[in-house]
Amino acid sequence: MTAPARSPSADDRRVDHRALRTAVAGLFRAVDVPEGDAELAADALVAAELRGVSTHGVASLGPRYLRWIEEGFAQAAPRWRVVRGRASVLNVDGDRGLGVVVAARVMDAAIERARETGACMATVHNSRHLGMAAYHAMRALPHGMIGTCSTAVRARMVPTWGREPRLGTNPIAVAAPAGEEPAFVFDAATTTVASNRLRLASAQGEPVAGGLLVDADGRPVREPTVPQEPFRLAPLGGTPEGSSYKGYGLAATVDILTGVLSQATSAGTFAAGVAAHNLMAVDVDAFLPVAEFRAGMDAFLRRLKATPPAPGHDEVLVAGQREHRAEQEHLRGGVPLPAAAVEWITAASDRFGLPPPDLGRT
Amino acid sequence: MTAPARSPSADDRRVDHRALRTAVAGLFRAVDVPEGDAELAADALVAAELRGVSTHGVASLGPRYLRWIEEGFAQAAPRWRVVRGRASVLNVDGDRGLGVVVAARVMDAAIERARETGACMATVHNSRHLGMAAYHAMRALPHGMIGTCSTAVRARMVPTWGREPRLGTNPIAVAAPAGEEPAFVFDAATTTVASNRLRLASAQGEPVAGGLLVDADGRPVREPTVPQEPFRLAPLGGTPEGSSYKGYGLAATVDILTGVLSQATSAGTFAAGVAAHNLMAVDVDAFLPVAEFRAGMDAFLRRLKATPPAPGHDEVLVAGQREHRAEQEHLRGGVPLPAAAVEWITAASDRFGLPPPDLGRT
Repeated sequence: MTAPARSPSADDRRVDHRALRTAVAGLFRAVDVPEGDAELAADALVAAELRGVSTHGVASLGPRYLRWIEEGFAQAAPRWRVVRGRASVLNVDGDRGLGVVVAARVMDAAIERARETGACMATVHNSRHLGMAAYHAMRALPHGMIGTCSTAVRARMVPTWGREPRLGTNPIAVAAPAGEEPAFVFDAATTTVASNRLRLASAQGEPVAGGLLVDADGRPVREPTVPQEPFRLAPLGGTPEGSSYKGYGLAATVDILTGVLSQATSAGTFAAGVAAHNLMAVDVDAFLPVAEFRAGMDAFLRRLKATPPAPGHDEVLVAGQREHRAEQEHLRGGVPLPAAAVEWITAASDRFGLPPPDLGRT
Repeated sequence: MTAPARSPSADDRRVDHRALRTAVAGLFRAVDVPEGDAELAADALVAAELRGVSTHGVASLGPRYLRWIEEGFAQAAPRWRVVRGRASVLNVDGDRGLGVVVAARVMDAAIERARETGACMATVHNSRHLGMAAYHAMRALPHGMIGTCSTAVRARMVPTWGREPRLGTNPIAVAAPAGEEPAFVFDAATTTVASNRLRLASAQGEPVAGGLLVDADGRPVREPTVPQEPFRLAPLGGTPEGSSYKGYGLAATVDILTGVLSQATSAGTFAAGVAAHNLMAVDVDAFLPVAEFRAGMDAFLRRLKATPPAPGHDEVLVAGQREHRAEQEHLRGGVPLPAAAVEWITAASDRFGLPPPDLGRT
């Protein structure tokens, strides 16, 4: 139920998701990312576009990730490795790889361990921004497992009663399989809003609601305002009277389970783009027969959806429902990409001497 | 950093924590709770009082728990058992035991498993209210482990855009050991506020802040108001524009990881007092040397505490700091108990034919 950052606008072009994936993977290969990793990175970015989470999609993150590799800030072919672990634990040195690739690979490793022991928690340090956290959590779904993913990044969140940022937006994602219903997929920053959404609003000169930001003195900004860098984000809860200490505590928990637990470091001291992750795979079958769980999830999700709506609202949603609808629509009708994104892909392909990508309307 | 529900008032009596524990354990034994369990139940309630979390302490929960046993709603001597599991998983049938006892026992079992595999997740169904969630998470601390505890209870939370309660207050607690600093202990309902706090405010006729409740139509109550049963709680975030869908998603996650994962049931359908739990023990040593983690935690917590405070505030707190201070003060000077609580203990002891408890001022 992550709020999509933007609606398709007039200059959006509908692009076939497969063509888009191929084009983006080509760009990653062009900067020496190995073929499998390039496809994975492209898949993660296109998955975000498919789900309508364009804040974490091709246009928002693609250029950054590519530049990081070209500038040596991220390694094209990282040799990530397990530095310590146990039957249900992996602590991974990400070797400065793209988080979007390393987190996915480590999640797959955690899934393998969870198949044996029932649950596995993995941490990753020395990594980079991992894109849409839900992407990694969702890798557990085809295995009948619950996946979680959280990541800590540079400081943007001002602790309750403080005046300077000390924690990142530190999102938490949880994916749980269902039966006939779409999977439950929760993905939310522990701030009131995600940085990428503010970046878009800032670029487009659009105001965001009051209660999401604090000013340079740490006071809540209660009126709608166009966000300006550096963003000073309030923890989820927004204000002290709204229990912002809870969002602050959740963000601190993410910092502990990622940075401190992996390398005794706080992510709050990280430079832009540096990230630590925590990934967990939980094998449902270790708790109860998967079919029973799926039926229980269906009943649970349907009960939530059947909540009578408040006046002025048509329906009550569950986490992941809006994104699932977007995905169904985009798989059929193509992914809406702003013209600028298409231009970026075309120009970058040209710069690397690649043939012009086939991004015709679907 | 759970907000204490009340400050000591003039009629509070300072009671020695050991004497209080002895008196409360005697009451549980009087209703046929086995000795070890009675001590555990008393310890959990007194631990809450020591930490200043009187919403989950002797006076708030003791009479309820005792009545549940007398009325047969909770079993005095439950035979809880693992119904399914794997090396890092336990799914426990709580046999209608007091959650405060069963959750603690299951946490201890999870700790044993985590010692082997590095991590263990346990679910408990067919249980009862477990008191202060942090109590169970904190059992991991003396073992150099991180503990988590969440519990799902009857519906009080109205989903974003809905008008009827569908999820409980579903708290999440996380405890992580530090070195010289007090442990990090986060414990928060995924609603803006805990039910027990509303119950106290309602009983005392005290208003709570705007943005915490919704009205019978699901509209946010934006002005301060004295809460009235039935409480209709907003998810953390408070209002849709404050991202209440995040608190809603966190509560749903807790419901899945407790009710659905343990028995394919949603806790949202539970009667008052019924609860499902999720407990996790994570052995720090499986990730990195515990001494390094402790040093990292100290640095992390000190950095947060050193955040320059906003105007009008003296300091920035970290989760568990306020409760730790209360505990230090109460261990020395006695636990402040309202006269009514002392009277309840005295009357109940008398009713069970126990000698008058020694609850003299410390």
